[in-house]
Amino acid sequence: MLPRTTFEFMELHGTVDGFRAALDGERCSGRTIGLVPTMGALHDGHLSLVRRAAKECDVVATTIFVNPLQFGPDEDLERYPRDLEGDRSAAEAAGSDYLFVPSEREMYPREPKAHVTVTTTEDGLEAASRPGHLDGVATVVTKLFALTGPCRAYFGEKDHEQLEVVRALVTDLSFPVEVVSCPTVRAPDGLALSSRNAYLTADERHAAPVLYRALEAGQACLESGERDPTVVSRVMSDLVGTEPSVRLVYAEARPGDVEWRLFVAAHVGVARLIDTLAVPVCAAPVDTVTAGR
Amino acid sequence: MLPRTTFEFMELHGTVDGFRAALDGERCSGRTIGLVPTMGALHDGHLSLVRRAAKECDVVATTIFVNPLQFGPDEDLERYPRDLEGDRSAAEAAGSDYLFVPSEREMYPREPKAHVTVTTTEDGLEAASRPGHLDGVATVVTKLFALTGPCRAYFGEKDHEQLEVVRALVTDLSFPVEVVSCPTVRAPDGLALSSRNAYLTADERHAAPVLYRALEAGQACLESGERDPTVVSRVMSDLVGTEPSVRLVYAEARPGDVEWRLFVAAHVGVARLIDTLAVPVCAAPVDTVTAGR
Repeated sequence: MLPRTTFEFMELHGTVDGFRAALDGERCSGRTIGLVPTMGALHDGHLSLVRRAAKECDVVATTIFVNPLQFGPDEDLERYPRDLEGDRSAAEAAGSDYLFVPSEREMYPREPKAHVTVTTTEDGLEAASRPGHLDGVATVVTKLFALTGPCRAYFGEKDHEQLEVVRALVTDLSFPVEVVSCPTVRAPDGLALSSRNAYLTADERHAAPVLYRALEAGQACLESGERDPTVVSRVMSDLVGTEPSVRLVYAEARPGDVEWRLFVAAHVGVARLIDTLAVPVCAAPVDTVTAGR
Repeated sequence: MLPRTTFEFMELHGTVDGFRAALDGERCSGRTIGLVPTMGALHDGHLSLVRRAAKECDVVATTIFVNPLQFGPDEDLERYPRDLEGDRSAAEAAGSDYLFVPSEREMYPREPKAHVTVTTTEDGLEAASRPGHLDGVATVVTKLFALTGPCRAYFGEKDHEQLEVVRALVTDLSFPVEVVSCPTVRAPDGLALSSRNAYLTADERHAAPVLYRALEAGQACLESGERDPTVVSRVMSDLVGTEPSVRLVYAEARPGDVEWRLFVAAHVGVARLIDTLAVPVCAAPVDTVTAGR
């Protein structure tokens, strides 16, 4: 890794050409670029990505773009939280060197004809619940890769299907980008940080950690030896059901050989929140392992 | 442009990693890369792209990959002409510095989940006639862009819709690639060079130039002042109909303000051939122009 460039101030760019030219310069100087794509309203989850990128890359480029392609017609595109001034100082303090904040017109000067689609193997939950959402993510991430030219790109584990989609497009389309996933950052009461938490009233904010408690209940169920996905899913959905102000979208346990993954999505007021947890499980009974020796 | 690197021999690569590493080295040295993506069985049309790239770029990378994604189930994937030894010497002689010839397994080690799709504005002819073909092209070209990192990419005008698709994906996905289109190279009798011409028997080869004669007839019709697309299309399809061994797929005239574009596709024996011609037209009657003065 080259000695890290010290910038007096973070550079703010609003145009593709300006942002690209700045990063071309960095790349030509042999510096590695870490990309942190966001939709803004930055919270400590985003900032953990920026900090990680700053540790691992010579230059950190954070992008803020509320991408209309990944919103359904009845979703919250218009009211999605925006806080450019707050984002600017937070990103800079966390170690971002560039902040790219393009307008919609700058990103899509015309109705785009080219789209990236990713077939989700495992009957995606978000894929099914938000048709078109993940393809919108795949398209904008491909575009951000093409215009940034990063070595590494940082994504939060909370959006697990998004992470899988990004990994798939990097593999299948041969982008020279290392996808780095970072742990979900939570409030002390367990609620996963999300820009959409800003929608919550005080009462809703009090109720919202039920998503995480449901994941913990699923985890406890697995740790007690339960291996029926239907039972584990039911434990989670029952727990969400204890909060009358929370409307479940799905609660699902997906088995795996070394770990299970638990997913939950729910509406809390106008906010649609998701969360996920990986739970390590024993691969095989102990005596099978012993038998092999 | 940097002084052109002189290679003793063209470098042949079969792996994504090896090819990418070689081109990373070239890019790090500040050299511009011209990409010539082909399916091999190189003819003088392909070689004109290589020669043009060699004029405009420091380094030329030619790729040969018969991309299964762009073939329909009943098409000629299995029998598509292959001539690696001939291609190798021809590409080298034309000025190619790298030749990338990956296996199908190397390009698609798994069934790809990520695909690039491009909606064709103008009710594409190939798009309609070969469903999935242009999306297969878009996907492999995106992948070749991502793994080559070219400044410019060279395509023949014969495959006009392919060219439009590549331009669309470069624009919409913000690839930092200049798309360079090169004139169709023709045999003395007008037949557009195509690897698929290798399928033609002597009799079929004799009949095949009827596609170009149809385009010329459409051009003559336009030059005589005809402006009804249906009439121009009919002139072309009638001309193709004069060759009993040629089975028309489509003949179509597409009006434009400064030029019309004529398209023709037909089966000649087992070969499905296409051709196209742009015909400049007067934008407006002469007295309108005079009236403006």
